[in-house]
Amino acid sequence: MTLTERFLQGDERALSRAISLIEAGSKDGERLLKKLRQQESKARVIGVTGSPGSGKSSLTDALIGVARAQNRKIAVLAIDPSSPFSGGAILGDRIRMMRWHQDEGVYIRSMATRGHLGGLAAASLQAISLLEAYGFDDIFVETVGVGQSEIDIVQVADSTLLVMSPGQGDGVQAFKAGIMEIADVFVINKSDNPSAHRLKREVKAAMELSHPEEGDWWPPIVSTIATKREGLEELWDAIGKHHDYLKESDKLIEQRKQRISFEISASVNNRIRQRLAVEEDKLIEAILSGEMSSAEAANTLFEK
Amino acid sequence: MTLTERFLQGDERALSRAISLIEAGSKDGERLLKKLRQQESKARVIGVTGSPGSGKSSLTDALIGVARAQNRKIAVLAIDPSSPFSGGAILGDRIRMMRWHQDEGVYIRSMATRGHLGGLAAASLQAISLLEAYGFDDIFVETVGVGQSEIDIVQVADSTLLVMSPGQGDGVQAFKAGIMEIADVFVINKSDNPSAHRLKREVKAAMELSHPEEGDWWPPIVSTIATKREGLEELWDAIGKHHDYLKESDKLIEQRKQRISFEISASVNNRIRQRLAVEEDKLIEAILSGEMSSAEAANTLFEK
Repeated sequence: MTLTERFLQGDERALSRAISLIEAGSKDGERLLKKLRQQESKARVIGVTGSPGSGKSSLTDALIGVARAQNRKIAVLAIDPSSPFSGGAILGDRIRMMRWHQDEGVYIRSMATRGHLGGLAAASLQAISLLEAYGFDDIFVETVGVGQSEIDIVQVADSTLLVMSPGQGDGVQAFKAGIMEIADVFVINKSDNPSAHRLKREVKAAMELSHPEEGDWWPPIVSTIATKREGLEELWDAIGKHHDYLKESDKLIEQRKQRISFEISASVNNRIRQRLAVEEDKLIEAILSGEMSSAEAANTLFEK
Repeated sequence: MTLTERFLQGDERALSRAISLIEAGSKDGERLLKKLRQQESKARVIGVTGSPGSGKSSLTDALIGVARAQNRKIAVLAIDPSSPFSGGAILGDRIRMMRWHQDEGVYIRSMATRGHLGGLAAASLQAISLLEAYGFDDIFVETVGVGQSEIDIVQVADSTLLVMSPGQGDGVQAFKAGIMEIADVFVINKSDNPSAHRLKREVKAAMELSHPEEGDWWPPIVSTIATKREGLEELWDAIGKHHDYLKESDKLIEQRKQRISFEISASVNNRIRQRLAVEEDKLIEAILSGEMSSAEAANTLFEK
């Protein structure tokens, strides 16, 4: 049986093999993905982001519990951009150690790849497409690190959860300009902490400053205590509502297209990166000495 | 007289014109920059980043005062990536309204450009090169927004100041994994606030977690009150020491090369972006229907 056939029959080892091929940049992996792309995707891609220590992994673990009780098939893709900014164990490793490694309805995979400029690598995006084709109901995507990965996750996920916890200096004030656009659902985890109310008030105030327009999605603020399994149904419900909103407003299709567009760009970036690695020193010298403009250097890379 | 000649004679209008040409993506601008690149640069490129409200603009304004007292020529480049994440007036506008618009030794310019994936546009990087060629002693670069711009500024600036202020929820805890690598100098502004000590302690603790190696630069933490001109000499001194460190460890040359490499990549990204804009819908359809892989789509863009 071919890898494609095994993949389509739901052989988890075939899925793992396919992702490994993609990760290695193999042509076989690309060909496989091309064939599988024709599978209809029913997956919701759920991005999970937030500060270290906010309880992202416990929360994802708890959400998997809710989803499994509904017999949904779940994938978790943990992307470590291996940037100078990353730190700590990645989500996949932490969840793997929990209770899901025996459950056939839960697939967990970590990828340690990054694109140029600190972004998500093409391989990570292709892996999401593989997971979609495999037929998962929900794909959780988490990236490690600050800044770029949080912004990337918005471009990739249908729904992005921003996980915060009180008393952590979460920087709502500091980052409110950016935070409001990132989140589709705010999660205040560890909400039994006495300062949870203040955090919720701050998020609300920041949100009001962002002036969503009529018909825009207004991100709900959900309080949870992941370790005590509190607030999870409400959170799951909020994710469902956001997905319905995307479907009804045709934004789900837009989101899918954006993901593909991002994948093309990432693929181009990878290629440029490879070419640049070989020619870089020569090109930089040529630019510094005035022989070449940076646009001409860019041209050189294209023409190769 | 040609624009190049006027530029080399120190005509500020020629500089402005040159930046405008670059901003418009004109070939004349590129040709000009190519010629000017041969000028030796003595400029220190100083990145200023930090949360909104931390007092970045007052601090930059105050630092300009210190630099001008030493008769140094100063440029300020404020880059608004016009991303969905930006907000607030940009630095250039705020400083312009202060006291420097009459001083010929201070040049202030805002650029509202962005590259693909939210990064700095090639034009911004080329503008920095123009400012270097013009002969400024110090070039302050500030970007608006969160995440990507903060990471980009590190790639562009010789020295990056991370400005924080107490009682702002600066997210030292939350973002410490990323914050430590961003800063060459930590600035605790508004340090007459009672909680400044706590913030300083937090930064110190976070820094100790990052385990710099022997011979690495250990970012100093400088307390300032920009509005009262306190701590500025110490900060200026810290910037000088970092620059000496870069020179002595050959990292200044590496930094310059990294800037050029970044400029090439940005230029490539711009070009791809333009091509993708035309072909995008067609390519996305082809990928979704399994006619094409994203790598093949990337190829198509190259071959055009």
